Amino acid sequence: MSAIPSSSQALVEITRDAYGVSGVVRLTLNRPDAFNALSEALIDALQGELAALAQSDARVVVIAAAGRAFCAGHDLREMRAAPSHEYYTKLFERCSKMMLAIQKMPQPVIARVQGVATAAGCQLVAMCDLAVAADSARFAVSGINLGLFCSTPAVPLSRNVSRKAAFEMLMTGEFIDAEKALREGLVNRVVPVDQLDAAVTALAASICAKPREAVAAGKGLFYRQLEMGIDAAYQLAGQTMACNMMTDPALDGVQAFIEKRSAK
Amino acid sequence: MSAIPSSSQALVEITRDAYGVSGVVRLTLNRPDAFNALSEALIDALQGELAALAQSDARVVVIAAAGRAFCAGHDLREMRAAPSHEYYTKLFERCSKMMLAIQKMPQPVIARVQGVATAAGCQLVAMCDLAVAADSARFAVSGINLGLFCSTPAVPLSRNVSRKAAFEMLMTGEFIDAEKALREGLVNRVVPVDQLDAAVTALAASICAKPREAVAAGKGLFYRQLEMGIDAAYQLAGQTMACNMMTDPALDGVQAFIEKRSAK
Amino acid sequence: MSAIPSSSQALVEITRDAYGVSGVVRLTLNRPDAFNALSEALIDALQGELAALAQSDARVVVIAAAGRAFCAGHDLREMRAAPSHEYYTKLFERCSKMMLAIQKMPQPVIARVQGVATAAGCQLVAMCDLAVAADSARFAVSGINLGLFCSTPAVPLSRNVSRKAAFEMLMTGEFIDAEKALREGLVNRVVPVDQLDAAVTALAASICAKPREAVAAGKGLFYRQLEMGIDAAYQLAGQTMACNMMTDPALDGVQAFIEKRSAK
Repeated sequence: MSAIPSSSQALVEITRDAYGVSGVVRLTLNRPDAFNALSEALIDALQGELAALAQSDARVVVIAAAGRAFCAGHDLREMRAAPSHEYYTKLFERCSKMMLAIQKMPQPVIARVQGVATAAGCQLVAMCDLAVAADSARFAVSGINLGLFCSTPAVPLSRNVSRKAAFEMLMTGEFIDAEKALREGLVNRVVPVDQLDAAVTALAASICAKPREAVAAGKGLFYRQLEMGIDAAYQLAGQTMACNMMTDPALDGVQAFIEKRSAK
Repeated sequence: MSAIPSSSQALVEITRDAYGVSGVVRLTLNRPDAFNALSEALIDALQGELAALAQSDARVVVIAAAGRAFCAGHDLREMRAAPSHEYYTKLFERCSKMMLAIQKMPQPVIARVQGVATAAGCQLVAMCDLAVAADSARFAVSGINLGLFCSTPAVPLSRNVSRKAAFEMLMTGEFIDAEKALREGLVNRVVPVDQLDAAVTALAASICAKPREAVAAGKGLFYRQLEMGIDAAYQLAGQTMACNMMTDPALDGVQAFIEKRSAK
Repeated sequence: MSAIPSSSQALVEITRDAYGVSGVVRLTLNRPDAFNALSEALIDALQGELAALAQSDARVVVIAAAGRAFCAGHDLREMRAAPSHEYYTKLFERCSKMMLAIQKMPQPVIARVQGVATAAGCQLVAMCDLAVAADSARFAVSGINLGLFCSTPAVPLSRNVSRKAAFEMLMTGEFIDAEKALREGLVNRVVPVDQLDAAVTALAASICAKPREAVAAGKGLFYRQLEMGIDAAYQLAGQTMACNMMTDPALDGVQAFIEKRSAK
């Protein structure tokens, strides 16, 4: 593990080869005293790191958080300081762009949820491709409690959990615990907090062991086909798979399987 | 609670400030001897009440039912009396319009399911934004047992529960119990029947405590974005949220949070 | 039960009136030594049988498998023998066409999953309208382990199970057991293997007891409306239901219900 020395001001701490696994990059939200609230600077820092990683040889990205909370959503103090319709429009555009960058980058992104995830923090979990949560983690889209319906968090939340469960969370602002998040599909695994790193490592290492090309093509296909009718989805999937099969790793991987040897 | 005196013939009984909560309006299907079957008159009465409530200062609507059954679907005797393709086309259009009115009105609608909900009765539960069921409630889309596939109920049912579960219910016509309805996402909560009002009240009161503008804008956004691709969904959600943030309740709610005081 | 004498080479064994239920046709994948891998010949055989059954008076189709595995996906040896982009494009088109034939035929199709279902084998389970699994059955989309992301299996899998669960299966290639498959919505029922035929029979018999027209129209409507916005879905569903109601079985079925007699 080669942790890049970060200044004490780094809003996002980057760790390469995290958890001792080559290719895993961990981005740690690093505003623990502010419950990792997404200030403009933090949104920009995340956006910058995600954009750079998308072009890098990273294989899996983990989004983690320092301190007790995972992420408390937008930085309300900053958001309230200079209210204007134009400012809010740009702010939510910028945040949405960052959230979408998670889905659009070629590497799978795993949320490591050690604590409370609210509003845009819950959205961040929902946007990640995978999520592992401590059993003490809790989730809410609580903007409505302040009169601000969590509209942008609703987008990925309603694509993760059932319709009525999403509606209830959005309208009541109430927390769900990790077990309910698991049952509903918001997270993939729930473990005791002292096993959180082990569970994230296992998931990340499993994906790092797969060929990069197949993972990248697969992730792109996965989300594109979800928005298509089934006939068009099959057409795109078949084309993607034919291209995938002609890559060296797939040709060798299949041949190795036939020969009962290890792939190169 | 100010129950409006209803004639003994009222097909839909209206109770304002129901459960002692200001802003909650309960509509009670009132054909208990017919298991609250949706006769044309009952469909029209419901449509009329929903349309009026959509324009009113009601905050939350509860759809409840008198007697042992929640709703047994269409009134088959009436439906069979004068068969013609034109008649059935108009009947299902009318019923669909009423069902869609639930989703299109600005107030959240909660189904209070105290008993059996079949066919269009099950559809009514699925169309509501939220549903609370007694543990003795049961659900079926049983038209297929009479040779009439529940096509219109399939629309919201298949948007509430998983694909294979919906297909099974529609093709076998068999009942599922309240616990399975909960696991599948057809209802939000299941409680003993003597706690049904308490559970509905808690949910309704929670929503009544939120600003009206945020709830209305949020509900509209929720369903519109569900039908969009994720990029367009984020664009609409961001715009909705920027407008929401500029309302007085949100500006004050966020400011109050920062100042650790109660909102106005 | 009239089992059609099949040559020992028959890749798909056909059994009419299977399980002693008139109208049930069972197609048994019959390459047990190859774990029922979908060779081109097996894909073509299945496609041929499904196309013929779609035009027949069959009421329910069961897809079963001989031997210990349900289906191990594509035949890798054959697939690897003469690699070209053109060949793979055609192969996946052909397989996709067969998979889609399951959804497009008028009869409900039940997967009888007695063992392991991987890659295109898991896809086959996901494409069936209904699935019953032995508690020892296991499911994976494991192509990624060989460098070949299961793109075409992703299409129905992601329409059966929650987004993060599907992504995890596709990226890790790991198995899920029958209980998880049930919780996620990939199968309808899980039973001990010695009760598998009884469970399949009960489901098939229940559907055979319904009028053919209603089942066929219902199945078509179910999948079409899933790809529509809710307004268009309701419009199509209402039209479908009006036509359905004018058929003799529905007119008689509803009348019989009113008269408390059995339908003709």
